[in-house]
Amino acid sequence: MRGIKLGIVGGGPGSFIGFTHRLAAKMDEEFALVGGVFSSDYAKSVKFARSIDLDVKRVYRSVDELIERERALPVDGRMTAVTIATPNYLHYDAARKLIRAGFHVICDKPVTMTCAEAERLEKMVGERGTVFCLTHNYTGYPMVREARKLIEKGTLGRIQKIDVQYYMGAFNPLVHDKKNWKSIWRFDPSKAGISCNVADLGTHAFNLVEYITQIEVKAVLADLNTLYDGLPLDLDATILLRFGGNLKGVLRSSHIATGEENALEIKIYGDRMGLRWEEENPNCLYLLSDNKPAQVYSRGKSSNTKFSLEGTRVYRGLPEGFFESFANLYKGAAKAIRTKRETSGAFPTIHDGVRTMKFVEAAVSSHKKGNKWVELR
Amino acid sequence: MRGIKLGIVGGGPGSFIGFTHRLAAKMDEEFALVGGVFSSDYAKSVKFARSIDLDVKRVYRSVDELIERERALPVDGRMTAVTIATPNYLHYDAARKLIRAGFHVICDKPVTMTCAEAERLEKMVGERGTVFCLTHNYTGYPMVREARKLIEKGTLGRIQKIDVQYYMGAFNPLVHDKKNWKSIWRFDPSKAGISCNVADLGTHAFNLVEYITQIEVKAVLADLNTLYDGLPLDLDATILLRFGGNLKGVLRSSHIATGEENALEIKIYGDRMGLRWEEENPNCLYLLSDNKPAQVYSRGKSSNTKFSLEGTRVYRGLPEGFFESFANLYKGAAKAIRTKRETSGAFPTIHDGVRTMKFVEAAVSSHKKGNKWVELR
Amino acid sequence: MRGIKLGIVGGGPGSFIGFTHRLAAKMDEEFALVGGVFSSDYAKSVKFARSIDLDVKRVYRSVDELIERERALPVDGRMTAVTIATPNYLHYDAARKLIRAGFHVICDKPVTMTCAEAERLEKMVGERGTVFCLTHNYTGYPMVREARKLIEKGTLGRIQKIDVQYYMGAFNPLVHDKKNWKSIWRFDPSKAGISCNVADLGTHAFNLVEYITQIEVKAVLADLNTLYDGLPLDLDATILLRFGGNLKGVLRSSHIATGEENALEIKIYGDRMGLRWEEENPNCLYLLSDNKPAQVYSRGKSSNTKFSLEGTRVYRGLPEGFFESFANLYKGAAKAIRTKRETSGAFPTIHDGVRTMKFVEAAVSSHKKGNKWVELR
Amino acid sequence: MRGIKLGIVGGGPGSFIGFTHRLAAKMDEEFALVGGVFSSDYAKSVKFARSIDLDVKRVYRSVDELIERERALPVDGRMTAVTIATPNYLHYDAARKLIRAGFHVICDKPVTMTCAEAERLEKMVGERGTVFCLTHNYTGYPMVREARKLIEKGTLGRIQKIDVQYYMGAFNPLVHDKKNWKSIWRFDPSKAGISCNVADLGTHAFNLVEYITQIEVKAVLADLNTLYDGLPLDLDATILLRFGGNLKGVLRSSHIATGEENALEIKIYGDRMGLRWEEENPNCLYLLSDNKPAQVYSRGKSSNTKFSLEGTRVYRGLPEGFFESFANLYKGAAKAIRTKRETSGAFPTIHDGVRTMKFVEAAVSSHKKGNKWVELR
Repeated sequence: MRGIKLGIVGGGPGSFIGFTHRLAAKMDEEFALVGGVFSSDYAKSVKFARSIDLDVKRVYRSVDELIERERALPVDGRMTAVTIATPNYLHYDAARKLIRAGFHVICDKPVTMTCAEAERLEKMVGERGTVFCLTHNYTGYPMVREARKLIEKGTLGRIQKIDVQYYMGAFNPLVHDKKNWKSIWRFDPSKAGISCNVADLGTHAFNLVEYITQIEVKAVLADLNTLYDGLPLDLDATILLRFGGNLKGVLRSSHIATGEENALEIKIYGDRMGLRWEEENPNCLYLLSDNKPAQVYSRGKSSNTKFSLEGTRVYRGLPEGFFESFANLYKGAAKAIRTKRETSGAFPTIHDGVRTMKFVEAAVSSHKKGNKWVELR
Repeated sequence: MRGIKLGIVGGGPGSFIGFTHRLAAKMDEEFALVGGVFSSDYAKSVKFARSIDLDVKRVYRSVDELIERERALPVDGRMTAVTIATPNYLHYDAARKLIRAGFHVICDKPVTMTCAEAERLEKMVGERGTVFCLTHNYTGYPMVREARKLIEKGTLGRIQKIDVQYYMGAFNPLVHDKKNWKSIWRFDPSKAGISCNVADLGTHAFNLVEYITQIEVKAVLADLNTLYDGLPLDLDATILLRFGGNLKGVLRSSHIATGEENALEIKIYGDRMGLRWEEENPNCLYLLSDNKPAQVYSRGKSSNTKFSLEGTRVYRGLPEGFFESFANLYKGAAKAIRTKRETSGAFPTIHDGVRTMKFVEAAVSSHKKGNKWVELR
Repeated sequence: MRGIKLGIVGGGPGSFIGFTHRLAAKMDEEFALVGGVFSSDYAKSVKFARSIDLDVKRVYRSVDELIERERALPVDGRMTAVTIATPNYLHYDAARKLIRAGFHVICDKPVTMTCAEAERLEKMVGERGTVFCLTHNYTGYPMVREARKLIEKGTLGRIQKIDVQYYMGAFNPLVHDKKNWKSIWRFDPSKAGISCNVADLGTHAFNLVEYITQIEVKAVLADLNTLYDGLPLDLDATILLRFGGNLKGVLRSSHIATGEENALEIKIYGDRMGLRWEEENPNCLYLLSDNKPAQVYSRGKSSNTKFSLEGTRVYRGLPEGFFESFANLYKGAAKAIRTKRETSGAFPTIHDGVRTMKFVEAAVSSHKKGNKWVELR
Repeated sequence: MRGIKLGIVGGGPGSFIGFTHRLAAKMDEEFALVGGVFSSDYAKSVKFARSIDLDVKRVYRSVDELIERERALPVDGRMTAVTIATPNYLHYDAARKLIRAGFHVICDKPVTMTCAEAERLEKMVGERGTVFCLTHNYTGYPMVREARKLIEKGTLGRIQKIDVQYYMGAFNPLVHDKKNWKSIWRFDPSKAGISCNVADLGTHAFNLVEYITQIEVKAVLADLNTLYDGLPLDLDATILLRFGGNLKGVLRSSHIATGEENALEIKIYGDRMGLRWEEENPNCLYLLSDNKPAQVYSRGKSSNTKFSLEGTRVYRGLPEGFFESFANLYKGAAKAIRTKRETSGAFPTIHDGVRTMKFVEAAVSSHKKGNKWVELR
C-alpha cells in the first residue's frame, strides 16, 4: 500500500470539517484513510465508517483505544498519521497522546485552548520529530504561496504597512435573538476558550500575515466587541499590530459583517511595491506599483515560482478553491512524512499554533486592560 | 460496500483528466474505484494501479477483457459503472461495448467522432436503460444550475438574445511554429475528428446554452479560422445561432485568444431580465434588470433553489471550482444508478452528446459551404 | 479672447447631447460658446440661450442665418467652429453649408444618413482644410489611446483575432409594447436611416476597432434582428468581420440586452499578447499574456505614453468618465484648429465617418441578401 | 445673467484644484466665474485670468481688495459667492473676511488649521445665514447619496459595525529620500497643521462615515505612523472609532499604501443588511444580505431615490467620476443660495468642517498620549 495510512479523530456524521479532511487527504492519493474515532458514540461511529466503506474493525471507542490497538498492529500496517477534527477543546489531549505514541498529527485550528498547551505540544514535537500539520488552510492557496515568495525575494522591498481583514456575516442572523446564544458552542467559553472571533477568524488572519511576510508580530492593541452586553465572547475585533521598527499594521475580523461571506483579504505594502490577495477570488494575486501597471498573477503561468506551481492541479483558468488549498497542506505533510524533511512554508506547524495562541491571549488581555499594548511573549 | 463500483478506461499515468475523474468519483464517497484499463501498455497500467493503491487483479489489457472478467464476478462484486477517459476517437467503441454488456457509462466529451455514432449510442442507451453521463462539467456548477432554474421558472421572461463565449490562449504559444503542429493530437483529423476548436470548446459552450435555457439551437452559420493556411483544423470559430421564432444568438470560441485562461462566459437576455455567468468566477451569477438593482446570486444562500444548494459542499464564501463541478455530475449519476431514475439537469446525457455532435457537423458544414445556414438535423 | 469661438446647432432645451457638447467644449477652457441655433423654434432657442447666459443676439433662426450673420462679423469676432448636435438626418445639410462657409465642424455621430453624403463631406473637408471632428467619443478615453499606442508599437505582435461588443438594454422596456414604436425616432427610417442598432451602437464599436488597431475591416456578414416582425429597423446585430489575410473578428451590438447599461467591450488578440477594455470600467486596460502575469494599465502612471497622459486631468485613482472622453476630442480639435495640424488619433475625422457609413451600408446589405459577405467599398 | 456670480481665491496657474473648482462651478451652468485672486503674484493672476477669458478688471491683489471692490459694485453685478482654493493655512482668514462681508463661501478641505477656527466660522455662518459649502466631494457621488438614503430609511437596520479606508501610495516614491521632505508642504506643520495624513485623507474618510450613516463619532484611539523617525507629520493612521452604545468602527488611512491609487472604501453593516462602496468604482453600490442575493445599485435606475437621480447627468452605464461628484456640491450650493434653504445632505457644511477638525485634533491627541481614547468634544 502506497498511501500513508491515516486515522481520523472526530469529524463524523454530518461534519463539514470531517468531509474536508477526508477529501483533502485522498485528493492527491497520498493518504489512505483506514479508521478512526468518528464520534463519541461508538455505534454512530461504526455506522458512519460503514457509510464510507471503511473496515469497521478499525473504528475505535477513544483515542486511547486507537493508540493501543494500532500500536498492536505490525509497523507497516498501522496508522502513520492521525487527523484531529474534534471540537477545539479536545485538541490538546488527543494531540498530546498521539504525539507521545509516535503518530504524526494533522490538527484543526485553533490548535489548543491555551498558549501553554500549544507550547507543551511544540516541545514534544521538537523532541520526537513529529510532523505536526496545523490546518490554517489559507496558506495552501497557490497565490498565497506566490505572495510569500515574492516578498522573500525582495520584490516588494522593505515592508512598511500590513492590513488584513477577515469578515463574515455568519453569526449575524443568529446573534440578534438572545435565545440562540446557548446553542452556539463558539459562544461558550468552556468549549471555545477565551475568545470567539479572535480565536476563530483572527488566528487565520494572523497566521496569514506571518506566513506571507515571515515577519513576527511583536505587540497588539485590541478592541473587541461582543455587540450585546451579556454575550460572553467577542464577535468582532480590530487589532493594531506592531512588528518592530516603524512597521505597523492592523487586523480586522468580524462575525457580524452582515452579508459578507468569507471576506479574508490581505494587503501588504513595501517601499517598492504592494500586493493584495482575497480569499473569495483566490486564484489571482495583485502586485501593485506606483509608476508601472499593476500585475495580476494567476496560477499555472510558467513565470510563477515552482512552489506555487506545485500547488496547482488544473489547467490555468479552471478555478480551484477551498478543498485544494486544504489538500495542499496534506500534500506537504505527506512529503514531510515520507522524506522526514519539512519544507519551509509547505504547511503551518505547531510553531504557528504557538504563535496564534500567543496572539489570542495578547489580544484578549489588551482588550481587558482597556485597549493597552500587550506584547506577544 | 456502499460505494458504486467503478472502473476507468484510459486516464492513466500523467493524465489530468484521469486525475479529475478519480477525484470527482471519490469526492462524495458515492463511488469506489476498483480497477480498469489505465493504459494501452499493460505494464504501465499495472504500475499505475499500484501507485494509487488499487488491486492489480482488476487491471485489464482491454475493454473486452474488462467486460469478460468483470461479468465473471458475482453481481454484487463487479463494476456497476465504467468511466471512459480515453482520447476521443476511442470513445465510441468502448461505449458501445460497455453499454451492450450492461455497464453504466460516464464518458468524456466530445462524446464521439461523428453524429451517427452518438445516435447509435443514444438508441442503445434508450433500449437498455443505461445511465450515460457525459462530462460537460460546466453544467455542474451550482450557479449554472441556479441559472437554469431561474429561466425555468420564468424570471427572465421570454428569452430574446443569447451570447456565449469560450476563449483561451492555450494553443497560442504552440501554433505559431509549424514544427509543433505534428505534436498536437487536436490538430490531427484522425484523432480529433472534423474539428479542433468547435469540437473541444464549442461543444462545451453549445451544451451550456441548451442546458441553461432548455431551448434547442435550430440552425447555425459558422465562420471558422485555422489562422494558418495548411493547418488542417479550426482554431477559432464565430457561429451565428437560430433558435426558432425571432430568437437569435452567437457562439464564439477560440484557442488563439492570447492570454485568456478559461474564459467561458454566457449572457442570456429575456424580455424581463438578463443574466450573466463566467466560469473563471463561477460562484457568482448576475441577474440584470433595466429598472432595478442587479442581483448577485452566490452559493449557499437560503433563497437559492434546492437544486443549486445540493451542488454546494462548503460554507458560503469558501470557493469551489472545477473539480466540484465535475463531482456534481458524478453525484447525479450515482443517484440515477441507485434510484434508477434520472433527474432532469443532474448531468448531461447521451442526448446532449447527440446534440453536440449535430452542432459540430452543422458548423463545419456551414463553414465549408461558404458560411451558409445549416440546420441541426 | 483666447477661447475658440464656438456655435452650436441643435442640442437645445432638455437635450443630453447638447449638455454634453457644451461641457466638453468648456471643460479645458479651449472653446468659448458664443451662440447658435439651439432649437427649430426660435423663441425656445432664445429662452434657452438666456438660461445659459449667452448673448441672445447670436441666437439664430437657422444654419443659413447663422452663417450669414456670423460671416458679417469681423474675422476675429466670429465663430471659428460650429458643433452639429441635431438629429442625424439633419447633419449632412448643416455640415455641408458650414464647411462651405469656412467653419470648422464638430459633428455628432453617426455622421450622415448615407455613405454618399459622408463621402461628399470628406471631399469638401479635404479641399478646404476643414477640421472635422466626429464625436465617436470612446476614442477619447486615455486607456483606449494607450491601447492604440500599445498596438502601434507592436506590443501585441501580429493581430490574430478581434472581438467587440456594444450591448445595452435601453430599448428593452419600450419595445415590447407595439404602441411605443411610433414615439421612438430611432425606429423611423426617415429619421434614423437604414438602421437603428448598427447605426447607433454598431458604428461606435466599428470605429473603436479601427481606431485601436489601425486595421481596416474589408468585409462583413451581418445577421440583424428586429425582434418583432413589423418593426422597421434592427435592434440587434451580430456581424462577422474580415480584415484581410487570416485575421477575422466579430462585432456584436444590441439594444435588447436586458439589464446591460453601456456594455461596450473590446478584446484584441495578437500573436504575442492580448488586450481587453470595457467602457463601464474605462480607467483600466488589461494586457494579457500566456506566460506572464496580466498587466493592468491605469491613467496617470509615469510609464504610460504621453498621448494617454495628455488625456488625463486628475490624480490617478480619481475616476474620469464619459464627459472627459468627449472633452478629449474637443481638446484635440482645438489643437488642430490652432495649429492647423491634425495629430493622428486625436479625434475621429470625416474619414472615420465615411468608414462607419460604409460599414452600416454593407451590414444592412449583407443581412438583406440573406447573410452574405459584403465588402466595404 | 442667470448664473450665480462667483469669484475664486487661489487655484491659479497649474493648480489642479483650481481647475476642478472652475469645472465644477460651470458644469451645470449654475455659476458664472467673474474674477478673483488667482495668485499671490498679481501679474501672474492677471495673466492667468486672460488665459481663461476673464475680465481682468475683476482680478484682485488680495481678498481684502476683492471684498472692497466687489462691494462697490451694484448688488446684482457683484459676486454672490467666493470659492477658497488656497493652501489650507490661508482658508481661515479668507473665509472669515468673506463671510463677514456677506459672501457665500465654497471652501476646500480641510476647512481650517484648528478646530477653534472652524468653530468661529460656524458661529459666523449661523449668525449671517451664509451658505458655506465644504468640498468633501466624495459625498457628491450619486451612489454615496443612495447609501445615505438606504440607511435613513432603515434598509440596513440598526448599524453594528463601520469600516472605512482611504489608501494611496502618493507619497511613497517621495518619502524614502529624506532630501525630498522639504519640498512637500504637507510635511510642513506651519502649512499643513498638526497632521498630514489624518488631515488630508482621514478627514475625507471621517466625513464620509458621518455623512452616510448620520451617526456621530464619539471617541477615537489613534495609532499614527511617520514611517521615518524625524518626519514631522503622520503618513499613515489606524484609528479605532466609538459611536456610542456597542457600535464600533475603524478608520484606516495611508499615504504609503504602495501602488494604491485612490482607494477610499466604506463598509457599513447593520443588523439586517450591509453595504459597500468604493471610490475607484463609484457608480456601483453593493447592498449585502446574509440570506438573499447581493444587490448592485447603479445610477439612473428608476428604482433609485430622487436624491441620487438628481446627481446623475448621463444615461446609465456612461461613467461619471470625480468632477461630477464635485459639481454636485456646487449644484447643491447653488440651490441653497437661490432658495435660501439648505437641503440636508446636498453638500457638506461648516458643521462638517468643525466635526472633521475635532476628529483631527482628537486623533493626534490620542496618538500623542500613547494611543489612549480621546473624545471628540
